[in-house]
Amino acid sequence: MISKNELKYIQSLYHKKTRDKEKLFIVEGPKMVAELLTSGFKTKKVWTTNENWQKNYPDAPIEMITAEELQRASHLKTAHEIIALAQMAQKEVAGKVNTPHAPSPVGKLTLALDGIRDPGNMGTLIRIADWFGVDQLIVSEDSADIFNPKVVQATMGSIFRTNVYYKDLTRYLAESKVPVYGALLNGMPLGSFPIPVPMTEGIILIGNESIGISPALLPFITQAVKIPQFGQAESLNAAVAAAVLLGHLKIPSYRQ
Amino acid sequence: MISKNELKYIQSLYHKKTRDKEKLFIVEGPKMVAELLTSGFKTKKVWTTNENWQKNYPDAPIEMITAEELQRASHLKTAHEIIALAQMAQKEVAGKVNTPHAPSPVGKLTLALDGIRDPGNMGTLIRIADWFGVDQLIVSEDSADIFNPKVVQATMGSIFRTNVYYKDLTRYLAESKVPVYGALLNGMPLGSFPIPVPMTEGIILIGNESIGISPALLPFITQAVKIPQFGQAESLNAAVAAAVLLGHLKIPSYRQ
Repeated sequence: MISKNELKYIQSLYHKKTRDKEKLFIVEGPKMVAELLTSGFKTKKVWTTNENWQKNYPDAPIEMITAEELQRASHLKTAHEIIALAQMAQKEVAGKVNTPHAPSPVGKLTLALDGIRDPGNMGTLIRIADWFGVDQLIVSEDSADIFNPKVVQATMGSIFRTNVYYKDLTRYLAESKVPVYGALLNGMPLGSFPIPVPMTEGIILIGNESIGISPALLPFITQAVKIPQFGQAESLNAAVAAAVLLGHLKIPSYRQ
Repeated sequence: MISKNELKYIQSLYHKKTRDKEKLFIVEGPKMVAELLTSGFKTKKVWTTNENWQKNYPDAPIEMITAEELQRASHLKTAHEIIALAQMAQKEVAGKVNTPHAPSPVGKLTLALDGIRDPGNMGTLIRIADWFGVDQLIVSEDSADIFNPKVVQATMGSIFRTNVYYKDLTRYLAESKVPVYGALLNGMPLGSFPIPVPMTEGIILIGNESIGISPALLPFITQAVKIPQFGQAESLNAAVAAAVLLGHLKIPSYRQ
């Protein structure tokens, strides 16, 4: 059973302002909630239509609801069995919120995102960063909120495993003392310049979906890179480009 | 001005059945319609709110409409200036429809898609194939329709430049005489087996978003491949995986 007030409260968390104030975000579906319950994140409350959850997670704050109630709380077209409220990690713990001092990029592989607006892209980028073992994401303040429910879903659970920091990228890059690989359409084609092996330090900078990297950030790029174009498409999606770049930088090549 | 009947007709083209019968599909937005008008595809009709289109394309069948009429015809939340009806290419011309005889994969780079259901993924895959100069896409009959308006938009114009054939993949792969690279979570990691240079012949097989490659197709894979996983994410999105694979196969590596 879910009360009217609880329903209103959940719906209010679809707005960034309320999320930031309450320090809570919404997690939906069996896969995502299972990841939440076994992650380091604290779970505020869970509502489900399937009583197995209470058996499998006896210590979690789980309540039963009807399918109709679940659908009313959900942002998905078709709600899937379960919805939860999770607490944003404290900045001292996982650094998921803006910190006064940015973590240094020295000795780390960092993905820097400049104005990624689409929640689906943002979530996919977090998932890609998790796959390729990126140590941290530094995200410009005008990018999509990582606790937007659409971002959370698109990460497929990687939200619970990646370190994301919102930062003024101009200042961050100005102070960084590591190579900055900027994805630019007029950059050097991958394969035409040497990559350090193993690739364990550097910032990979990905720009906004339509306008690319901000002019203010260009002076900090130490290696402008481009994915070679073999056909006619004008561009690649920002998340796809990041994945190809990370694949090239991380995976050795073995040619006949 | 757009008549009620025209509006109904456009809306009927949001259904695959009508598209297949009428051999027409919908193209929206300035970028996509400009690509259509300069492509080899025939344009049946265009409606726009901006009279510059009539000046710039005097030979095209362009009519003026109001913003309200445009929004009613559009499938986008916010319609952008222009909507067009395009004719599907005849199979003799560009092979965009099912042909009795599949084009041979010999001497070509082919992307084979097994049960890609999400229109956004399908469109992104077509865009990726266009970027990497893939010669043709062979798509299983249960995959998303490439003329679905969401697919068309997600291709960002690559729909007009790629050769897509719907085929029974089991039969196609059984008859193919070229290497088949299948993306499998238990495949050989990229970088651990040799890649021919230049990489100009072979089939890259990508499976369904949740269940992967169908069991019936597994015997035809000559090289099972996997994108090395450096972090914790369980999987990559199908389009992202295809892009990393194509990047690895096509782009040479230069390491220090």
